Amino acid sequence: MSGELIIAIQGERGSYSEQAATNLLGSGIKLSCCEHFSEVFQRTINKEADYCLIPIENSLAGSIHKNYDLLLRHDLKITREINLQVEHNLIALPGVKFKEIKTVISHPVALDQCGKFFERHTQLTKRSAYDTSGSVKRIMEQKLKDSAAIAGDRAAEYYKAEILKTGIQDNQENFTRFFLLAVEPETTKGEDKTSIVFSFKNTPGALFKCLSVFALRDIDLFKIESRPIPGRAWEYLFYMDFQGNPEEDSSRNALNHLKELTEFLKVLGSYPRDSALEKKSI
Amino acid sequence: MSGELIIAIQGERGSYSEQAATNLLGSGIKLSCCEHFSEVFQRTINKEADYCLIPIENSLAGSIHKNYDLLLRHDLKITREINLQVEHNLIALPGVKFKEIKTVISHPVALDQCGKFFERHTQLTKRSAYDTSGSVKRIMEQKLKDSAAIAGDRAAEYYKAEILKTGIQDNQENFTRFFLLAVEPETTKGEDKTSIVFSFKNTPGALFKCLSVFALRDIDLFKIESRPIPGRAWEYLFYMDFQGNPEEDSSRNALNHLKELTEFLKVLGSYPRDSALEKKSI
Repeated sequence: MSGELIIAIQGERGSYSEQAATNLLGSGIKLSCCEHFSEVFQRTINKEADYCLIPIENSLAGSIHKNYDLLLRHDLKITREINLQVEHNLIALPGVKFKEIKTVISHPVALDQCGKFFERHTQLTKRSAYDTSGSVKRIMEQKLKDSAAIAGDRAAEYYKAEILKTGIQDNQENFTRFFLLAVEPETTKGEDKTSIVFSFKNTPGALFKCLSVFALRDIDLFKIESRPIPGRAWEYLFYMDFQGNPEEDSSRNALNHLKELTEFLKVLGSYPRDSALEKKSI
Repeated sequence: MSGELIIAIQGERGSYSEQAATNLLGSGIKLSCCEHFSEVFQRTINKEADYCLIPIENSLAGSIHKNYDLLLRHDLKITREINLQVEHNLIALPGVKFKEIKTVISHPVALDQCGKFFERHTQLTKRSAYDTSGSVKRIMEQKLKDSAAIAGDRAAEYYKAEILKTGIQDNQENFTRFFLLAVEPETTKGEDKTSIVFSFKNTPGALFKCLSVFALRDIDLFKIESRPIPGRAWEYLFYMDFQGNPEEDSSRNALNHLKELTEFLKVLGSYPRDSALEKKSI
């Protein structure tokens, strides 16, 4: 089928990234699976993929800093966002019973998010892997009868594995926010959210002044996150999401005002806000 | 020796935490080594240790969020801070030559900070461990001839291992900031820095107003960091360090003003600023 969109993701087929990509773009897409996030970015830059979809933040574990760092280093633009509810399941080889399981394999974040499950079942040993769905794949390929994986239901479906227990995460309010990135920005209507990164000279009140350019224009902020600047000890970059896009007067003026106050300012992209499970103003 | 201070740290003897504890309190201390940070906190709360020393932030890798989360959950007070320059070394069994090394074991953050070293030496396989100095201990105990560890020079000295290469980290500007925590706050002179954590109702401009209580009183900020609130999707706690302590009028007034604007506010401690390798105002 020609004209099929190719989307680079990290991890194996059946992952939460696949789920998010399908929710956003429909099932007629082709996935390009990469082991590392740096590869995901590189394939998109090299035009081997039309887009890439990366997780940027989880409502329990916090930001995925590696991806913020990659967004800074590479020149891809955020074109869409999507919030996905995460439900972790215990998944095994079909026919295997729960009492036969000794080891549980998954991504360390997924293992951490099921802490209470492991407290209730102390016979289980946790083992880290680089991917949730990749753990299901491994159990199926190696026919591991004493192991189970923690992953989404899509992984069980894709690898024809069996779900032994559903919803084993500690907290039901578990959402992951993903960004769809492309080489070129896309101008579509309803781009009501913009992500930027900036840094400034260390002077008293500098951050307050930077926030004032938004507050004085009644522009809502949704997120602010600081990251260290490598090689400049204790200096920070600030990642920020705000309402609006630079095509509008107030956002454009705010960004021009922010330029006066900053040493470095980069717009990471403007995109329509995902109104499902959405973020709140700060 | 009676009256010897007991300091709980995470990791084995010879670690960067041990180095920081000795720099801060001298060599006449007794270390209580724990596998996990939650244990480090617990031993201090149970009075099995007089203090604990925890890393809170690295100038390259960023904040150690697990420890911010533990600071919030437990009622220990920050009483001191210290900045330590981190130098990673390649350490092996005495007599082993570099060309014999196939595997390099260390904490994942230390492995990441030596990325260029691994690019130059592609024959080496990286293996994660829970601790830098613990990796040296393991190599010595198991007499591993084809493996080396990445750790500080103190670990080589303590386990009588041999440093094969010094300063193998990518970036020389590599500092880790530690907090010394106690059950009770200590009132000493020169407590010129205070750490707090707060959250507020999600309303437009809320963060700007919170920063204004400091800016309007010319109080310098050194750090701001956001962390998700578990179970309240996309709501954040803000961790902040500012100049001064609540014994002074302006800091006390700023905190009272901040209380009017926040739903939750906790003072994590006031402590003398480490003037070596120190942080800058934002």
